[in-house]
Amino acid sequence: MSLADDLAQLLTPDQVSQNPSVLDHHSRDESYHQPRRPDVVVFPQSTEDVARVLRYAQQHRVPVVPFGTGTALEGHVVPVRGGISLDMARMNRVQEIRPADFLVCAEPGVTRRQLNRELRPHGLFFPVDPGADASLGGMAATGASGTTTVRYGAMRDNVRKLEVVLAGGRVVEIGSLAAKSASGYHLTGLFIGSEGTLGVITKLWLRVYGVPEWTVAARAEFPDVDSAVRASTALIGAGVAVARLELVDEVYMAAVNRFKGTAYEEVPTLFLEFHGSRGAVEADIAVAREIATEEGCTRFTFVAEEAERNRLWEARHAALHALMAQYPGRRHMATDVCVPVSKLPEAIARARRRMRELGVCGGIVGHVGDGNYHVGLAVNPDDPDDMAKAEALNEAVVEHALALGGTCTGEHGVGLGKRRYQAREHGDALELMRAVKQLFDPLDILNPGKLVDPD
Amino acid sequence: MSLADDLAQLLTPDQVSQNPSVLDHHSRDESYHQPRRPDVVVFPQSTEDVARVLRYAQQHRVPVVPFGTGTALEGHVVPVRGGISLDMARMNRVQEIRPADFLVCAEPGVTRRQLNRELRPHGLFFPVDPGADASLGGMAATGASGTTTVRYGAMRDNVRKLEVVLAGGRVVEIGSLAAKSASGYHLTGLFIGSEGTLGVITKLWLRVYGVPEWTVAARAEFPDVDSAVRASTALIGAGVAVARLELVDEVYMAAVNRFKGTAYEEVPTLFLEFHGSRGAVEADIAVAREIATEEGCTRFTFVAEEAERNRLWEARHAALHALMAQYPGRRHMATDVCVPVSKLPEAIARARRRMRELGVCGGIVGHVGDGNYHVGLAVNPDDPDDMAKAEALNEAVVEHALALGGTCTGEHGVGLGKRRYQAREHGDALELMRAVKQLFDPLDILNPGKLVDPD
Repeated sequence: MSLADDLAQLLTPDQVSQNPSVLDHHSRDESYHQPRRPDVVVFPQSTEDVARVLRYAQQHRVPVVPFGTGTALEGHVVPVRGGISLDMARMNRVQEIRPADFLVCAEPGVTRRQLNRELRPHGLFFPVDPGADASLGGMAATGASGTTTVRYGAMRDNVRKLEVVLAGGRVVEIGSLAAKSASGYHLTGLFIGSEGTLGVITKLWLRVYGVPEWTVAARAEFPDVDSAVRASTALIGAGVAVARLELVDEVYMAAVNRFKGTAYEEVPTLFLEFHGSRGAVEADIAVAREIATEEGCTRFTFVAEEAERNRLWEARHAALHALMAQYPGRRHMATDVCVPVSKLPEAIARARRRMRELGVCGGIVGHVGDGNYHVGLAVNPDDPDDMAKAEALNEAVVEHALALGGTCTGEHGVGLGKRRYQAREHGDALELMRAVKQLFDPLDILNPGKLVDPD
Repeated sequence: MSLADDLAQLLTPDQVSQNPSVLDHHSRDESYHQPRRPDVVVFPQSTEDVARVLRYAQQHRVPVVPFGTGTALEGHVVPVRGGISLDMARMNRVQEIRPADFLVCAEPGVTRRQLNRELRPHGLFFPVDPGADASLGGMAATGASGTTTVRYGAMRDNVRKLEVVLAGGRVVEIGSLAAKSASGYHLTGLFIGSEGTLGVITKLWLRVYGVPEWTVAARAEFPDVDSAVRASTALIGAGVAVARLELVDEVYMAAVNRFKGTAYEEVPTLFLEFHGSRGAVEADIAVAREIATEEGCTRFTFVAEEAERNRLWEARHAALHALMAQYPGRRHMATDVCVPVSKLPEAIARARRRMRELGVCGGIVGHVGDGNYHVGLAVNPDDPDDMAKAEALNEAVVEHALALGGTCTGEHGVGLGKRRYQAREHGDALELMRAVKQLFDPLDILNPGKLVDPD
């Protein structure tokens, strides 16, 4: 019997597909990484389904690669050694919403927008926002973060508890529903960001938040990136609880104008958001405007009404697609380093210099409150010269970030693209990480070839 | 040669002690747990010293128990199998303060008050406050948290990077200086709360915060615990960024009055603190007062001036000593469960009922914003009947917390006292935790008999 037949028998035939377009869909993510088809795609509908597949995979030594929405940016879901792509899309129920505990229990295939739609009637929201409408399982597996991390933290800060299926099919629950715990080893934190290499997440208990009484979005224009970043740091230092703090550089602002037909000043722009009681937000806005002005802000505008806020944020959210629209047929590649905040102007300045030297075109967006920024490039994966330049840029950006004590990836994860930097970043600790992988997955069948697997 | 002679030769003679009072000091913490002397106390002065001791310990299979200030509450530092107590007090330098990065690098023997004294001239502070003037190494090792966790998180949220000496003496750095990272497995989170069982922390890079422009402390009196807790939950739900949110029950308030000669109303009282820009804090105070009043608050007072704030907080800080002062010669025992916030009134009500049934006397304080509360008891460890009652109470409190999806310890850690609940809390995940311990410390010489070690 074939692998697909075995799995169809183990589950049901409609849970297993070898349709070429389905295999293609599961061969890649949104990145420039080389696609590779899985042998078969399986759609589990329950934890028990996942356990069955992992038991089978262990017995037959078949690789298993969990798949959420395929929006990863470093090739995480590419089944580089074939095997089973385990698509979690049918496990998409929000199982419980507990408003009084600010808790929700969801299956891994629930996307963040779906979750927020279901939370809204309860006056709640889930803040982690990586941009894409990713699945919660994928967000936990990659340790996602995004625009609101400066205030609400990353996935690691907002996952209370996980149900995980281990290699071989054993199901365990890790973590607790309490807001904090000092009991046992912190396995939850270990699984978050493990990219499917230690186990498959089948259920998540997440911390959610009350929709703030008052929300204001603001834009601040600056003459240069340095002054914009200085303003950000001053704002954080003043203890203003800003909920979003994003930089979009002049290249991206120009791309947005062309893409959306808008007429923004094509200068480095901070996008901000403030959450809280109306009085507190208004006070914070006043402080933010004062600090921004001191650092050279030439224009500061803000809006409170929801439709206007969404319009204001459009420019930030459209940045990636605006850039890519200028280069049809190309693939997206983004650097993703994170550095100590004071080093951000220097890091960005060096990245821009290197971009000029290499003759690559791209823009910079940044979660500047966290010291995390992206150089976005449109690359042609079939042009070795183009790829070499892009990789040289990535290399330079990463090297500099590591020299500053930062990390090669703030939020996109390791996947395939950052494996080559793991030894440089982690030194001897990488050996420990490999030992952890060996402990949890001795046969190396859980998303093999990723994260701690050498290039 | 004896163990002490070997170690004196390995380091220097003044770094090794077998003085009986030194051995006694290292035989216990602030808890009721049975003391046990180490064979020898060693005072390393550098990472290299620690590495030497761990190499030696591995070769000779001698247990090593890291010791900070001895303020643990679950017997963490009791060397139950003898061996070396590794006192980190001489590694007490703040090595670097980076105000523009909100980062500090400190040795593990630095205490939190020392750190805050050194941060103050830079306009910075480190928020994690477990009450005791604990060492930073100990706070990281136990995953400490405290009164400010509701706003600033626990140790796990504020440690960026660690230098750790592993069993056998290998030195590794884990984590990065970046505010967030998606690179490699999250070993930092694993070491935080590992209680010296996976390695010895020899350096910490911590996130620090700008001293807020404006700070206001407040007290709110309530007719009963329920209404106080309801007010807390409503406050969090409204998105008010309260910096501290503490409950002190009427028993403790009465003890404080006797101890400090004060004349507080002896009713359940919330202690609150607000940090931010002046305008934002004033707005938050107004919202907090309104919410408290809606939930039945009978008196709400607040003060902004520092000396007055300290006076207001005295009652909360003095609570433990006030209780113990009523029972000279007794030892302190505290339950430490943490439950989903909405379950807190029910959990506290049941704990009080059980206290009455058992005839034990004690009070309740709680970090109510996190769902973490303590029943504080003064016990006589030499009276089996007294200890049996205290343990029966602890058992009942823990059982109920676990039934509610909570944890047996919110912040005190496992040490000796919570080992018996690890299997019930973690189920099959405990086996994974034991495998992790086995991986990092195959000879079981790093703080043996703690955390995942069966009772």
